[in-house]
Amino acid sequence: MPKAVSLLSGGMDSAVLAYHLKATGYDVHALSFNYGQRHSRELQFAEEIAADLPASHDIIWLGVQGDGPESIFPLSDILKGSSLTDTDVEVPEGHYAEENMKATVVPNRNAIMLSIAYGVAVAEGADIVTFAAHAGDHAIYPDCRPIFVELLNETLQVGNEWATPVPRLYGPFLTLSKADIVRTGSELDVPFELTWSCYKGGDIHCGKCGTCVERAEAFALANVEDPTKYEDPDFWKEAVRVQSSH
Amino acid sequence: MPKAVSLLSGGMDSAVLAYHLKATGYDVHALSFNYGQRHSRELQFAEEIAADLPASHDIIWLGVQGDGPESIFPLSDILKGSSLTDTDVEVPEGHYAEENMKATVVPNRNAIMLSIAYGVAVAEGADIVTFAAHAGDHAIYPDCRPIFVELLNETLQVGNEWATPVPRLYGPFLTLSKADIVRTGSELDVPFELTWSCYKGGDIHCGKCGTCVERAEAFALANVEDPTKYEDPDFWKEAVRVQSSH
Repeated sequence: MPKAVSLLSGGMDSAVLAYHLKATGYDVHALSFNYGQRHSRELQFAEEIAADLPASHDIIWLGVQGDGPESIFPLSDILKGSSLTDTDVEVPEGHYAEENMKATVVPNRNAIMLSIAYGVAVAEGADIVTFAAHAGDHAIYPDCRPIFVELLNETLQVGNEWATPVPRLYGPFLTLSKADIVRTGSELDVPFELTWSCYKGGDIHCGKCGTCVERAEAFALANVEDPTKYEDPDFWKEAVRVQSSH
Repeated sequence: MPKAVSLLSGGMDSAVLAYHLKATGYDVHALSFNYGQRHSRELQFAEEIAADLPASHDIIWLGVQGDGPESIFPLSDILKGSSLTDTDVEVPEGHYAEENMKATVVPNRNAIMLSIAYGVAVAEGADIVTFAAHAGDHAIYPDCRPIFVELLNETLQVGNEWATPVPRLYGPFLTLSKADIVRTGSELDVPFELTWSCYKGGDIHCGKCGTCVERAEAFALANVEDPTKYEDPDFWKEAVRVQSSH
C-alpha cells in the first residue's frame, strides 16, 4: 500500500485531502504542528479527524528553549509580526482576499512544515508528501503557489536523493477553489463538523474573520449544506458583497 | 549594520563561520537545534561560543507531542534510522569519508533547520541566512552540496518574496576544506577549545568517531595546533592511512 505523509491542520481543506488520499488507496500519516498559533484549538479537531479516518497522527512541537532545560516557549516567540502568532496584532475581519489578510502570514511556515514532513517521509519510506494549499491561497501566501511547491519538491528531492523511495512533494488541490474542495469533501462524506477554521479560537466559529468568511462562502458556492455553527452566521454575505464591489 | 541568522551547532565549522560573519561586519543571531541528537552536549558549547562572540543565541526545540499537553518527545523519535538520533544504531568509527558514515545522516536535517532559520530571518529583517557546510561534506550529505543550497535559496526567496529584505541563503564555506576552515579560524583567533565535534558525546572527544578523525586531521593539514583533548589522540592517523590506501 503506498504511503503518504500529509499535513493536517484541523481545518477543512487538509481534512478533505486526508480523506481523498485514503479513498485513492494511501496509508496516511497525518502531521499537525503546534508552533504557538492562537488557534491551537484546531489541533483537537485534527486529532478527531485522524481518529475518524483512521490515520496515524503526530503533532510536531516547534519551540524555543528558555533558561533551564525544562523551559520551552513556542517558536512563535521569535516569529513575530503575524497576527496568528503575535497576540499584540489584531486578527483582521472581512473577506480573506483583502489586503489586510496579509497580516496573517507566518514567515516561511509552509517550508518549515513541509521540510519536517519530508524528513518523516524519508525516514518511513513514504511515497508522497502532500498539503492542501488551494488556488484561493495564491494571492495572499507566496508559499502556497504552484511555483513554490514545484521548487521545494525539486530542492528536497535533490537533498535526499539517496532515499528509497525519493518522496514526491505536491499539492493535489493547488488548482482547486475552496468551493471545489467542499464539493470533493461532500462526495467523500467528510465529517465537516469535525473541522475548525476560525482564527479567533473561541468556542464556536466567529463567522467574521477571514477564514470563517471564506468557509461559509465556499459551502454556499458549492451548494453544500454548512454544518458549522457561527456566532454571526450572516456576516459573510455582507463581507463578500463589499469585496465584490471593490 | 547588516544582520545574519546563522546555524551554530557547537562544532568547529559553524563557530568559525560565526566569527567570520562578525569580522565582516554582521550582527549575528545564532540558532542551535535540539532534536534529540545523541551529541546534544554540543549545545552547551554553542552557548559558550555565542557568549564569547558575543551574539544573540536561541536553541530551537523540535519535538513530538505525546499523550497529554505536557509530554513532548524529541523529533528524533519519528526520524528513525540514523545513528545520530537512534540509540539502537552504533556510531561508526573510522574515516569520515567512508561509506559507513552515511549512517550518520538525519533525514532532511538541513532543509528543516535552514527553513526555520529563514523564517526567523524574515521575521527579524535579516539580510542573510548562513550555515557552515564545507566541501568535505558533499560526498556524504546530499543536502550539503552547492546545488542543494542554491535550490533551497531560490525556493525560499520565491516563497517569501513579500519580505523586506528577501534574505539570501548561502554557505560561505561550501568550497572550502575543513583544513581551510581551521586556517580561517586560526587567523580570526577562534577559541577552538570552546567547540565540540565528537558524535559520541562523552566527557572529552573520543578521537575515533568520524568527526573526531576529521577534526584532528584538519588541524594537522592546516598546520595549526589542535587544543582538543582526545581519549585516543593517535587513532586518526591510522584511520587516515587506511582510508588513503583504499
